Amino acid sequence: MTVNEALNALKELEATLRAYGHALGCLNYDGETVAPRNSAPARGETMAFLSGIVHEKVTAESTGEIIDTLLADRENLSHVDRRRAEILKKNRDELTLIPANEYMAYQQLLAEAMQVWHDAKLASDYAAYAPYLDRIIAYNRRLAQRKDASKPAYDVLLDSYEEGLTHATLDPFFALLRRELTPVILEVAKRPRPDTAFLNRRYPIHLQRRFTDRVLEIMGVSRDDCAVGETEHPFTEGFNRHDVRIATHYHEENVLSNLYSVVHEGGHALYELGVAEEYQGTLLSGGSSMSIHESQSRFYENLIGRSRPFCEVILPELKALFPEQMASVDAETLYRAANLSQPSLIRTEADELTYSIHVMIRYELEKAMIGGDLDTADIPGEWNRMYREYLGVEVPDDRRGCLQDSHWSFGAIGYFPSYALGSAYGVQMLERMEKDVDVWGAVRGGSLKPITAWLGETIHRHGQLLTPAELVESACGGPFDPHRYVDYLKGKYGMLYNL
Amino acid sequence: MTVNEALNALKELEATLRAYGHALGCLNYDGETVAPRNSAPARGETMAFLSGIVHEKVTAESTGEIIDTLLADRENLSHVDRRRAEILKKNRDELTLIPANEYMAYQQLLAEAMQVWHDAKLASDYAAYAPYLDRIIAYNRRLAQRKDASKPAYDVLLDSYEEGLTHATLDPFFALLRRELTPVILEVAKRPRPDTAFLNRRYPIHLQRRFTDRVLEIMGVSRDDCAVGETEHPFTEGFNRHDVRIATHYHEENVLSNLYSVVHEGGHALYELGVAEEYQGTLLSGGSSMSIHESQSRFYENLIGRSRPFCEVILPELKALFPEQMASVDAETLYRAANLSQPSLIRTEADELTYSIHVMIRYELEKAMIGGDLDTADIPGEWNRMYREYLGVEVPDDRRGCLQDSHWSFGAIGYFPSYALGSAYGVQMLERMEKDVDVWGAVRGGSLKPITAWLGETIHRHGQLLTPAELVESACGGPFDPHRYVDYLKGKYGMLYNL
Repeated sequence: MTVNEALNALKELEATLRAYGHALGCLNYDGETVAPRNSAPARGETMAFLSGIVHEKVTAESTGEIIDTLLADRENLSHVDRRRAEILKKNRDELTLIPANEYMAYQQLLAEAMQVWHDAKLASDYAAYAPYLDRIIAYNRRLAQRKDASKPAYDVLLDSYEEGLTHATLDPFFALLRRELTPVILEVAKRPRPDTAFLNRRYPIHLQRRFTDRVLEIMGVSRDDCAVGETEHPFTEGFNRHDVRIATHYHEENVLSNLYSVVHEGGHALYELGVAEEYQGTLLSGGSSMSIHESQSRFYENLIGRSRPFCEVILPELKALFPEQMASVDAETLYRAANLSQPSLIRTEADELTYSIHVMIRYELEKAMIGGDLDTADIPGEWNRMYREYLGVEVPDDRRGCLQDSHWSFGAIGYFPSYALGSAYGVQMLERMEKDVDVWGAVRGGSLKPITAWLGETIHRHGQLLTPAELVESACGGPFDPHRYVDYLKGKYGMLYNL
Repeated sequence: MTVNEALNALKELEATLRAYGHALGCLNYDGETVAPRNSAPARGETMAFLSGIVHEKVTAESTGEIIDTLLADRENLSHVDRRRAEILKKNRDELTLIPANEYMAYQQLLAEAMQVWHDAKLASDYAAYAPYLDRIIAYNRRLAQRKDASKPAYDVLLDSYEEGLTHATLDPFFALLRRELTPVILEVAKRPRPDTAFLNRRYPIHLQRRFTDRVLEIMGVSRDDCAVGETEHPFTEGFNRHDVRIATHYHEENVLSNLYSVVHEGGHALYELGVAEEYQGTLLSGGSSMSIHESQSRFYENLIGRSRPFCEVILPELKALFPEQMASVDAETLYRAANLSQPSLIRTEADELTYSIHVMIRYELEKAMIGGDLDTADIPGEWNRMYREYLGVEVPDDRRGCLQDSHWSFGAIGYFPSYALGSAYGVQMLERMEKDVDVWGAVRGGSLKPITAWLGETIHRHGQLLTPAELVESACGGPFDPHRYVDYLKGKYGMLYNL
């Protein structure tokens, strides 16, 4: 096989993988948003079947030949072609470790687990869910073992969400957050609580849907390329730069819940919408690591979305749709309500200050689960104990405890740290961005376009061409420094609560 | 290959085709309901790719061997296995006539045509759509030619929607409808128009959505197995008996439009939901011919949905959701409004009496188009001329004229007659059903379950095991007789308008 033949074969393989990936993504999005509940088993079968074909294509000998041919000539390849070959190699090396039947059975398990989790969460019935979680954990431990038996299994899983990430980085990162943020959290809890009575009024969902449209317009999300659906646990799925899907959720008695879900998912969407046209359909399409993805979503959600200028811009929109509910609310009240800090039960609804503690708890639990130090049966107890110890809250039921997140059900173990890392990256990116862009002028002007343009050039357009480490280095203007994140949080909440 | 080997291979092939069919169906439903508008080209590529695989599997030599082995032993096969082999043969014979590349290009053309049609309809811009229609017609003519050059091309296409159907049946059928119904239509037009002022009030869409839920509950459609979406042109898509999708549309100023769309699509859904469990995943799953499918949807929509007892049952539901809009409306007013007969522009909104004339016009146009007697460029003129001649209405623009239906855009040429045939079958089915079931007692009791149970036993459960002709014979209790349909319409409208 010549290099040219290998490049042609790679292109054909990419087209094949793109088609199956698109179909699988569509089935998944459909399942999470609009499919009827009894549809899960047949969808699981279909997804398992299609995943089996993907497994077959990626692990095929001919695919190995493409990779070997290209990487043997690594020095003469363009940056783009080299990276395509490297990503394919990473995928192939992983899939080759898993027999096709096992892989297909796991895909079907995940489809079923998702449905079981939905029901178990509604009924707060952890026992119904535990056998599925058990099998998901067992699969991931086995996978980690096969990939690199010399490393702690959890480190191997972390690496698949963020290349090179290990407990050696995360242990001190979370220790720093615990040490520095806990005193602030405790101090804040003693201060007078801001007025948030307006949050508990009734915000009809059909009007909240219209509010979503306005928020995405301000963010500059092209609705011709991005649709909005509804689900239990908000998420974003990107098929290509002309087809991205946000799924949000509505609570009639909490207008901010949807607002910040939409701003968060809108951040993910802008990333997927911003990947360069030339990478579409190739292995470089879509976002880089999960931490980089979360750095974007949490950037929009918190650094922009919970800023005072954004609250000023969004207030008239809220008043137009909810004149009675918002009658007494001014920008300062909205700003303080959007930044109300209190130890609470639900990660996705948590304020910026306590958020990373929620993530830290999941990190510790996953590390213990995968390390073999924690049985599935003991997860609720351990979850509740840590919420008591680190956040001082009593978990009343598993629905608001260890069943709240969907991640384990789609097989994502080792993903949670991305949220905290991404949040921390974002602070450095903002500092860097402020040197080039009038960030707050743009927000006050009611359009986030200049912000998205900067992130687009620095991060979005590169897709998966650059590694997470390269993106962090260039977007943060230097190495990652978690103290900047801590300083930002201490500064913001110090001012908000007169500490 | 032994018969047993062939049966095993058939089972495996069915599992493969089921998976690809599911993925294609999901992509299609997604595209028609929630996908953003710029998503069409990439979805078209994916659907073309997956269709290419289906083509490859069905036309494979090994598939021919399965068919030959089974049909050689036809006498010893069970009814189920014989029918599976026959259906596979029919699919294979057709696909074998089309080279894979041509087939894939056509699938992509259809995906694009659908998007172009959506836009062209909104803008009433026939010129933008015509080149796509041209290519769709050319493909269908070529296909008909290849299948059987000895027959008129349109007859060949009709046969693919209803085995054995030709112009020799349809010409006199439509001639009968024209001859018998035109005088009634003209006479009705002279009578006083019933009071329909309430129809033009504002019915907020978020409340209409709740009304949809109630209507489907009365129909007995299990929402755990059937989801409801929204689209431009209502349709139903069934993946299996635990996953059926209805897509409806809402018009704020017309509450009956959604009502009768939902009852119509609910009829399709009940059919798909009623196919026996044992046929799921086999070639016998899903409904029989399009005429049988339309006999079910039009049965619920008109024979039940536009009956006086149904109006009595649905009225309190409407009043509960729309107390002001419906304040002055009693059951008789609703019944008369739901059966308002007037020559009009839009087929899907047409009353029962004029409906078949809309279908007849499409039949004549398609026959001429496919027969080579009508150029694409002349369709709008011819459409408008026939609406003037047969319905006495002036078509103001193509949006409300020849661009109103989606069928040609998804390649369905020869489908329209199914609506009229199905409507006519339904009348005979009702006569037969009334001998076994207290139809109107059930409707008055607010549950259509006994009706669905009868149709379930007689039609739904058989899936594709029985041919359309067999189903008509058994459900109608005798051969098809279009005079019964004409008598029913003349009786109903004679009473409504005191003719």
